[in-house]
Amino acid sequence: MRTFVLYARKARTDSKFRLDDLVSAGRMDLVCRCITSALWLSHNVREDTRIFVVLNGPTKPPVTICFQGSKLSKVYVDESTNAKWIKKLLSMKFGKEWLEVEGAKIARKSFQEVLSELNGKIYVLHEKGEFIDNVKIEKNPVIVLGDQIGLPDKEESFALRNGEKISLGKNVYLASSCISIINWICDKNGID
Amino acid sequence: MRTFVLYARKARTDSKFRLDDLVSAGRMDLVCRCITSALWLSHNVREDTRIFVVLNGPTKPPVTICFQGSKLSKVYVDESTNAKWIKKLLSMKFGKEWLEVEGAKIARKSFQEVLSELNGKIYVLHEKGEFIDNVKIEKNPVIVLGDQIGLPDKEESFALRNGEKISLGKNVYLASSCISIINWICDKNGID
Repeated sequence: MRTFVLYARKARTDSKFRLDDLVSAGRMDLVCRCITSALWLSHNVREDTRIFVVLNGPTKPPVTICFQGSKLSKVYVDESTNAKWIKKLLSMKFGKEWLEVEGAKIARKSFQEVLSELNGKIYVLHEKGEFIDNVKIEKNPVIVLGDQIGLPDKEESFALRNGEKISLGKNVYLASSCISIINWICDKNGID
Repeated sequence: MRTFVLYARKARTDSKFRLDDLVSAGRMDLVCRCITSALWLSHNVREDTRIFVVLNGPTKPPVTICFQGSKLSKVYVDESTNAKWIKKLLSMKFGKEWLEVEGAKIARKSFQEVLSELNGKIYVLHEKGEFIDNVKIEKNPVIVLGDQIGLPDKEESFALRNGEKISLGKNVYLASSCISIINWICDKNGID
């Protein structure tokens, strides 16, 4: 199982955002693109992959939503439809425990709580990390990345207690592009 | 200069599509994601990259739009804002010659006409191509890819007259993911 964890610093945690302006919803557009990059091949969902999106924006952070390829009953690839789904999940009654809805799950869990629930070696995507081609990625990797602002220091330190920093090189890529690239590298090296 | 050419088989060629349902506009969502993947780093536009999107859907195909990083005056990364821009361009009066509008350009040009205007070695992304890690990509590459349906045979044959097939491996990836991966490979190998 390949796992991505996206820390979205400002993405809204209520359902009161407009579907025609995802950028203003704390960069919910970025969150939606990351879900697509993590879970989708051209014609199939990736059965062996999941993504946790940790939303830390207003009005009641944190909220984490998990989408797992093998459990998804519906098929979404565009930002707008993913956003509708997130909006629907955020409008439900949920608390500290996972609430499962049509293959997705949602809870009032923080980044650190989510990481604590996961097994597998943690890789934190970071400009100053070891270049990914020089890293032997282990099976069941947990790949952690921030949004356009990056991970807060305390979250980064927490993730690195059992993890290592990796980099995609000198450029800083869109989070969704990072996920596409890492999926491809894991595919070609047979790392699930 | 790195160049991508996306053949979008059904994407609309008039401005009469709804911004809240890009999937129904001949997969305009896919076109928008490809533009983002081609031109955007996390905080910057790629100055050295351009993408031609060849739209072949109703009502008056073909239409090609070119977005070039170094010429763009506005900053768009989400699907919805890219789609608004495409809609605006499609609503203008344009013909066989390029009309330049705020750094983008649009014309009633076909896939073959666009390829004929380009210099640089052509690489056609194809499941049966040579694996990209085994290909020495030349400077100023022109990377050609289809949408979720793929290139029509006659367009593929035309592109291959001066090109070669390359592949990203056994999986078929989203067009936008292909572009992110190829950009990364070109970056790390210093190929512009």
